[in-house]
Amino acid sequence: MIEISLLRHVKVNGPPALYGHTDIAPQVVQNKSLLTALVNSQQLTPYDLVISSPLQRCQLLAEQFSKTCQIPLTCLSDFKEMNFGDFDGVAFDDLNFDDSSQSNSQGWQLLEKFWHAPDDITLPKGEPLALFHHRIITAWLELIAQQFSNLSSNKKPIKILLVTHGGVIRMILSHVLQLDWQSATLQQHLQIANGSCSQITITRPFSENNKTHSVVNYIGLPMPSTI
Amino acid sequence: MIEISLLRHVKVNGPPALYGHTDIAPQVVQNKSLLTALVNSQQLTPYDLVISSPLQRCQLLAEQFSKTCQIPLTCLSDFKEMNFGDFDGVAFDDLNFDDSSQSNSQGWQLLEKFWHAPDDITLPKGEPLALFHHRIITAWLELIAQQFSNLSSNKKPIKILLVTHGGVIRMILSHVLQLDWQSATLQQHLQIANGSCSQITITRPFSENNKTHSVVNYIGLPMPSTI
Repeated sequence: MIEISLLRHVKVNGPPALYGHTDIAPQVVQNKSLLTALVNSQQLTPYDLVISSPLQRCQLLAEQFSKTCQIPLTCLSDFKEMNFGDFDGVAFDDLNFDDSSQSNSQGWQLLEKFWHAPDDITLPKGEPLALFHHRIITAWLELIAQQFSNLSSNKKPIKILLVTHGGVIRMILSHVLQLDWQSATLQQHLQIANGSCSQITITRPFSENNKTHSVVNYIGLPMPSTI
Repeated sequence: MIEISLLRHVKVNGPPALYGHTDIAPQVVQNKSLLTALVNSQQLTPYDLVISSPLQRCQLLAEQFSKTCQIPLTCLSDFKEMNFGDFDGVAFDDLNFDDSSQSNSQGWQLLEKFWHAPDDITLPKGEPLALFHHRIITAWLELIAQQFSNLSSNKKPIKILLVTHGGVIRMILSHVLQLDWQSATLQQHLQIANGSCSQITITRPFSENNKTHSVVNYIGLPMPSTI
């Protein structure tokens, strides 16, 4: 059995924007609180392995946690957030509705279209949703297959912490729950909170219909009042 | 704007079983930890109203929180868990696979069928999934409509804590995210952890296509290590 906790990074140090591949720093105080919460939780239900997106808003926490609790850490580039192309890291305020310049107005219109049909609209120089989905699910299935092949013969469960991004977690949850990842409603409305943890339990790698058997379990981590 | 936090009760004081309408007590220490977490969170983002299922595993916490923080409390019977009929509150151990008695064997077979097709199979004297769905969504839409009609003219957001059950939260999430509530995969695999909190933000009551506009946000509450 494999238990994987999908932990979203804390809030970032920047104005509201689409942050995808932009390597923006996490908020220091929040990151410290989340680290403390993780280290405390390690006493009860220890992780065996930490995997992280290489972007610093994930990796800083993963490195500190790995070092503090002496758990192996692997950074996997495939678990980076979606690439929002020309919009990536550009503050929404710089695309203000009141701004009369044509380019900004067009930018907002495109963003609106993208939000309403994320599978049909690709942002300029951005990653199409279908390719993002393919990247994440391929990496996810590889991770599971590899971990199952590594499982010791005594079948002791392995517990993994995957520190990653909101869009990545949404894609994995959609896959595990067999939801329609192309749905604009799901992409828009299933928000994964900063610092929240979604727990997935996989009892066997592939069932008769080639799907993973999984249980998704939302576990609160950490308290809103602590970050 | 209305913010509603869907909080699942803590673990109950009983063996593993389907607990629906059975009024089993919550675990005292976990309930106390969750109360402390809630009271602490109230200092940052205060709730205006508490709503609770009348079953004691929800209501005890809701009453203590309401009293401690002086917030109005309403108990709504419609937010009770699904009624599992003859199976409700019967320990799984009393339906053991190894038991050779015919009735127990039949019980397990029926439970298996129910888990694989919860919308097709109704447990003896139990509540059909479709009626449960109708009860929950009707109560949910009434709650939202009432709260919007109560909103003051200055449109200050109202924040509500709804203390309820796993099946109820799953139905509400399915509705808000427009997921297929009849899906066995969703009903089986989307587990709502004890003490976890799913936050829903509703910006306006009804959109042009008569659907609520909502954002679902999973916020960790509380730390696994604290309960």
